[in-house]
Amino acid sequence: MQFEKILNPESIAVIGASRNPNKVGSAILKNIRLTYRGKIFVVNPFAEEIQGIKSYKSIMNIRDKVDVAIISIPADSVLKALKDCEKKKVSAAIIISAGFKEIGKEGEKRENELKAFLKKSRIRVIGPNCLGIINMDPPVNMTFVDPNTKISKGSTAFISQSGALLSAIVDDASANDIGFSKIISIGNAADIDEADIIDYLKEDEKTKSIVLYIEGLVNGEKFLRSLKEATKKKPVIILKGGRSNETSSAVMSHTGSLAGNYKAYELAFEEAGAITVSNIDDLFNFMRDAAKFEVKTDEVVIVTNAGGGGVITSDHINEEGLKRAQINERTASDLSKQLPAESNLHNPIDILGDASPDRYKETLDIIAELNRPTIVIFSPQEMSMPMETAKVIYDLHKKKPNLPLFSIFLGGTNVEKARRFLIERGLPVYDYPNEAVDIIKGLYFYYSHRDPTYERYKKEKIKTVSFSGKKNAFGISAKMIFEKIGINTVNGMLVSSGSELKKGVDKIGYPCVLKISSNSIAHKNKIGGVITGIKDHIELDKAFKDLNQVIKENKLNGAKIELYEDATKDKKGYVEILIGGHRDPVFGPMIAIGVGGIYANEIAEVEFVLPRISDQKIDELKRTNVGKVIMSAAKGQTFDELIGYVIKLGRFMEMNRNIKDIDLNPIIVSGNSAVAADFKIFVE
Amino acid sequence: MQFEKILNPESIAVIGASRNPNKVGSAILKNIRLTYRGKIFVVNPFAEEIQGIKSYKSIMNIRDKVDVAIISIPADSVLKALKDCEKKKVSAAIIISAGFKEIGKEGEKRENELKAFLKKSRIRVIGPNCLGIINMDPPVNMTFVDPNTKISKGSTAFISQSGALLSAIVDDASANDIGFSKIISIGNAADIDEADIIDYLKEDEKTKSIVLYIEGLVNGEKFLRSLKEATKKKPVIILKGGRSNETSSAVMSHTGSLAGNYKAYELAFEEAGAITVSNIDDLFNFMRDAAKFEVKTDEVVIVTNAGGGGVITSDHINEEGLKRAQINERTASDLSKQLPAESNLHNPIDILGDASPDRYKETLDIIAELNRPTIVIFSPQEMSMPMETAKVIYDLHKKKPNLPLFSIFLGGTNVEKARRFLIERGLPVYDYPNEAVDIIKGLYFYYSHRDPTYERYKKEKIKTVSFSGKKNAFGISAKMIFEKIGINTVNGMLVSSGSELKKGVDKIGYPCVLKISSNSIAHKNKIGGVITGIKDHIELDKAFKDLNQVIKENKLNGAKIELYEDATKDKKGYVEILIGGHRDPVFGPMIAIGVGGIYANEIAEVEFVLPRISDQKIDELKRTNVGKVIMSAAKGQTFDELIGYVIKLGRFMEMNRNIKDIDLNPIIVSGNSAVAADFKIFVE
Repeated sequence: MQFEKILNPESIAVIGASRNPNKVGSAILKNIRLTYRGKIFVVNPFAEEIQGIKSYKSIMNIRDKVDVAIISIPADSVLKALKDCEKKKVSAAIIISAGFKEIGKEGEKRENELKAFLKKSRIRVIGPNCLGIINMDPPVNMTFVDPNTKISKGSTAFISQSGALLSAIVDDASANDIGFSKIISIGNAADIDEADIIDYLKEDEKTKSIVLYIEGLVNGEKFLRSLKEATKKKPVIILKGGRSNETSSAVMSHTGSLAGNYKAYELAFEEAGAITVSNIDDLFNFMRDAAKFEVKTDEVVIVTNAGGGGVITSDHINEEGLKRAQINERTASDLSKQLPAESNLHNPIDILGDASPDRYKETLDIIAELNRPTIVIFSPQEMSMPMETAKVIYDLHKKKPNLPLFSIFLGGTNVEKARRFLIERGLPVYDYPNEAVDIIKGLYFYYSHRDPTYERYKKEKIKTVSFSGKKNAFGISAKMIFEKIGINTVNGMLVSSGSELKKGVDKIGYPCVLKISSNSIAHKNKIGGVITGIKDHIELDKAFKDLNQVIKENKLNGAKIELYEDATKDKKGYVEILIGGHRDPVFGPMIAIGVGGIYANEIAEVEFVLPRISDQKIDELKRTNVGKVIMSAAKGQTFDELIGYVIKLGRFMEMNRNIKDIDLNPIIVSGNSAVAADFKIFVE
Repeated sequence: MQFEKILNPESIAVIGASRNPNKVGSAILKNIRLTYRGKIFVVNPFAEEIQGIKSYKSIMNIRDKVDVAIISIPADSVLKALKDCEKKKVSAAIIISAGFKEIGKEGEKRENELKAFLKKSRIRVIGPNCLGIINMDPPVNMTFVDPNTKISKGSTAFISQSGALLSAIVDDASANDIGFSKIISIGNAADIDEADIIDYLKEDEKTKSIVLYIEGLVNGEKFLRSLKEATKKKPVIILKGGRSNETSSAVMSHTGSLAGNYKAYELAFEEAGAITVSNIDDLFNFMRDAAKFEVKTDEVVIVTNAGGGGVITSDHINEEGLKRAQINERTASDLSKQLPAESNLHNPIDILGDASPDRYKETLDIIAELNRPTIVIFSPQEMSMPMETAKVIYDLHKKKPNLPLFSIFLGGTNVEKARRFLIERGLPVYDYPNEAVDIIKGLYFYYSHRDPTYERYKKEKIKTVSFSGKKNAFGISAKMIFEKIGINTVNGMLVSSGSELKKGVDKIGYPCVLKISSNSIAHKNKIGGVITGIKDHIELDKAFKDLNQVIKENKLNGAKIELYEDATKDKKGYVEILIGGHRDPVFGPMIAIGVGGIYANEIAEVEFVLPRISDQKIDELKRTNVGKVIMSAAKGQTFDELIGYVIKLGRFMEMNRNIKDIDLNPIIVSGNSAVAADFKIFVE
């Protein structure tokens, strides 16, 4: 694809190169000259030459072929320049210029014009409003990052939606021993977007891991598809900016209010097997170390010469949901032959403050046989030898290059050289225990989630049910829809007269429930629109009258009364579960499954899943609190039935894009039954 | 107290000074010589002189007065040396030697002998098994940390239970711009303990903040008392090692199983107003910056030249429970006069990528008037001037020294000098947004918790009720105790015959509940020992027979049957709450208040409080999920009544130290009533 051409052009033209050293157009040209060996052209109608290169009035005047044009001129001239590029048969352009959708209405109009042109055009574009692109091999720096910034070659590709963050991170990366394969400032992504770039980097042999800073996405589905394919090949790490949990106030449904803005992103990234981080230091560590080892178990071994260091590392391991590996008897016995009597042979393996490099070696040789991710802690103490210990670690790595081996060298100047020795040889070394644990946790997540299976999902028989309603549907009208989808619902019916009421209760029996049904109220309880536990004819008559009164008082035009069986009748030890659907504007339908009933609002014990749920996610769901609540009352087949509901609701929302939210709350779950007792469909 | 003498001795004797430069006794002497201006004596029977100082055969041979003896000799000779010190009227000793309780049985015996001697002795001791003590002013380094380690003078006192961690942190501190007032390795704390040292440091004018690394405490009450007094005067920061949540398997009660090992520590530290951190990098940041500003509001202002930086910082602020300050209209209008049109005037205030130092100044001058903790973010961009921006920040600090002003300089070499400029002038600067947010969160916690009030606690009238039972008490026998304490319990009685049953139900009415009462079973439900919802005489007779059958089948000798009113009778919209007591081995009774009933095990939505509950904690409790569940069903006075139960149970457990755990679960809460429906007291 043309992105290859952008990264590896045979010739570049800088449109808007500048003689003023403080201008963007000057820095770009300087960076290209410092890094690039192909042909460089300069376009600036007001200059004869810039930085020693002849300047053309227009790109049209260049006779040679131009592969990539870098456009850094005022926003209102960009489209014209781009049209010239097309005439000149330039393959691709990087539009540095700002002044597009990021500045509001006027810019949005400009960006739409740009997009309209690009739709018909052969030319491919990065930007506008970006910093540019750097390829480290073959080298070409087409950005305006400070030309003094030292950038090292490595195997991490970095894509950023924030230019400012990109330049700050690149500025700091070298000192953090991070090398890059590609650095891409994506800007407004008017043409080439994150997914396109991921597709490219997935196949790029010089890229071993992909790191993204993202604030928002336009086409969630496309992104997710690319992300899933990429994680099958290499780790992808994402820092999502804008994780605030403010919910849209327009959302009426309970499920909607439980789903925060970030929820869908989190779910989608997780489902695609990407590692998510929440702060910049973690981002740096993953940039440096994500591609170094495969971590396929969550059982970690710790070897330490400092009790306190082992204790703190164990704390982090517990808190991050990893496990300390059990040391089997044979290994403990082997260790005991090598170590002083006061050593702790169980994990963390404490080889004491006076541990020599030899003692580290003997211990590590035994421990390495366990093939578990291993954290080696070194703390400078009396007579300890940091450099020699580092060499022991490196020797082990050479002998067992696939053993995930993470070192923590506590301390400062006393251990600095040892740290550098290992880092320069490509081994991950950290100053603090939490860093090593975060990396192991992230990599274990990746290697256990990068290739999900969907057997359960595929097994579900889904009925295509269309819902063309333009108004919210509650009560019986919603119940009928859910029945069609294949969800068990409580017996119920509309009752418009006293005689219908009597006929109904003959079928349904006592205790029963009467509810007001009105499209204009979602929360019937609040106005006294629900009467439960009706035990006999006398109570039933009274309830019917009371509800008619409520309808009158609240002026609920068109409201009706509905009669339901008591869904909890004859059910011992049942629990109330909620299942809901929420349409995320970027990623589409997501499904909530949580604890329903009276505590639902206060506790918000709820898990979200994507409708295309993986077998691994189903297993994880079972181990959550929600899963435990369900399993405390129901059998495995009922849990499986609820998973079926998740899939069915998801498909229903995929087929009917007018539906915004769905609430099934409560679903009465016990033994081998799951029955929805209240139902809502929101389209507004 | 004598601890002053230890920190500021007029003369020191090193018992076990060594000529071998690889020995501890050599490093100690070297450190003293490098730092100390008082008289130094050396004791070593096998040397004439060490490091140029005359060596004595015994401390007894020294004619001059000796204030402090540092003992670094084999463990089995320590007591003898200490006895000599006493004869010599040495005020205090630091016992470096290891080989005491940390090595097991033999060492434990040795430590007990040491303690027995110290009990009768006038001499005060730090250690054994410690690294020693450093005072920075007047300077004296009485440790064996590497003599090449650079240690800076400052205002942070550091106490560590781990020697290895202490030396690693001290080694790294200088590079992290941390200066110390005192550094204390506490070792086994056979005499002077953490509380004693905190008492001293609280009054020490050279110490502005106190940092502790703790793995465990022996006397929790004493520690807590000292901690509470200290936090009234200066911030105390604690990293607790060993936070694993493994619960003691011996605990039978539900409350007991909810309380992890760390829970009591966490509660106690929080109640005392200490800042807790969980990793070493946070510890470093608090060491450096805890005493710099008072943070008295959780509303933070962010000023940034990088959108992405503002977004990430906002995320951390939300995730850590802080708030972004609202920018009022007048301020926004003032800002709008100074800033370009595209700026974001609302928090985060984005002054755009081309922000000059002047623009920072104009913005900060306006923002400073809000008197809110302020985070200034600088990201190196085209034409930005880091050093000049740093100077603007420093000028503001000089003008408004009390404004909590935190800077984040993103990037590497481009901003390093600017960072150093501010750090050297005592201003907190961070590389990453999460660091600034963690500091603000910690300091806000401190300034809002350091002086709790106990009005509600004091108002509670507590009845002293003694419980001398040596067996667990369940059912009616427990109910009677709780009634005496002043807790509302459901009506109930023992029924040993059919006629008692009839008489009982005449009083209590239907529906009612029958339960088996046996001291040998805590969980009656599991064997079918509870029958609820009994509606009439027929069901009652059947239930009575069934339970007698259960007693027979399970061979429950001495078991009886109890009749209870249905506590949920006539209560609409009630919730089930649990209140329990658990005795922590270090800190004593702690009280759990949580969601009870069927979900209690799976959801574990529970808050722990100390029985001496502060008014602030009560307010916080109301805002937790548990508080919200209670308030969803009950009135404020009922919430207050439950707080009364907390205080009463706490007092009851304080008075009766044989009680290990208490469960009141469920308590039926609705409107203005709270009634305990099941009751257990565990002593075993």
